[in-house]
Amino acid sequence: MRVLGVDPGLTRCGLGVVDGSAGRARMIAVGVVRTPSDAEPGERLAYLETQLGEWLRRFSPDVVAVERVFADANVASVMTTAHATAIALLTAHKHGVPIVFHTPTEVKAAVTGSGRAEKAQVTTMVTKILRLDEPPRPADAADALALAICHAWRGSAAARVAALTPGGMP
Amino acid sequence: MRVLGVDPGLTRCGLGVVDGSAGRARMIAVGVVRTPSDAEPGERLAYLETQLGEWLRRFSPDVVAVERVFADANVASVMTTAHATAIALLTAHKHGVPIVFHTPTEVKAAVTGSGRAEKAQVTTMVTKILRLDEPPRPADAADALALAICHAWRGSAAARVAALTPGGMP
Repeated sequence: MRVLGVDPGLTRCGLGVVDGSAGRARMIAVGVVRTPSDAEPGERLAYLETQLGEWLRRFSPDVVAVERVFADANVASVMTTAHATAIALLTAHKHGVPIVFHTPTEVKAAVTGSGRAEKAQVTTMVTKILRLDEPPRPADAADALALAICHAWRGSAAARVAALTPGGMP
Repeated sequence: MRVLGVDPGLTRCGLGVVDGSAGRARMIAVGVVRTPSDAEPGERLAYLETQLGEWLRRFSPDVVAVERVFADANVASVMTTAHATAIALLTAHKHGVPIVFHTPTEVKAAVTGSGRAEKAQVTTMVTKILRLDEPPRPADAADALALAICHAWRGSAAARVAALTPGGMP
């Protein structure tokens, strides 16, 4: 199964492509889409849409895995993340690729064995699992790869859970 | 000044077009885009994008006015509203139309004189201001018209405020 992991954001949107099956994972590509915070919001979203479309065309993933965002104290940050998530939903739909959501806890548990693992531990495990020479930077790139690994390993079970989520909305 | 007001939402997205200047306002069009809550999220966003594009082409507004959403207790609702807002940002950008945001308080104050007015009062005043035979239904349609009136009346002052907002993000 080929998974495109997306750590949604406008300033930095992490992207990672992984081929994987239970217990196995190979990195195909990793990157970060950056847009300047002083650019017009619509322009930033349009650029993200273009870049996501490029990745979908180039790597033809079977599924897109996105981090499910929860509201927290930083409302402005949650809103821009939600906007980036909407672009992922829209673009994946236009390319006919299903999209699934995983919580940060699910992702941490999948790659470290603990849903309460530190960010650094996630990066360390992603580096080991994918046998990379050095840790993916920035953290958004590592998080995108972790998402992709998480979904590839959870496989069809996660897809069934997503289908059962009321409304299916992130 | 012609304003397309957008009350963002996925289940119902209110749209209202108003021609207005200080103290005057005329309704050009009003409507609601609905998408079924059991449809795939990406499909709903794609449909909203298509419909918004249709309104932008048909009515050529000078500006799009959108309700600025704040996080509240209902996280799921805030997220879908934020997704719809992202589609408005993206679509307005692609059509080269500037987008501005107004808070519910600003909108209520503009049409009723009080930022703490009830929803019903907003609908009543929108009906009076636009000299409509009956109140616009559903409430999302009235809210979209109120947004458009609000922006048309605040005019360039609001645009200057928006330009000064740090990051300019909703």
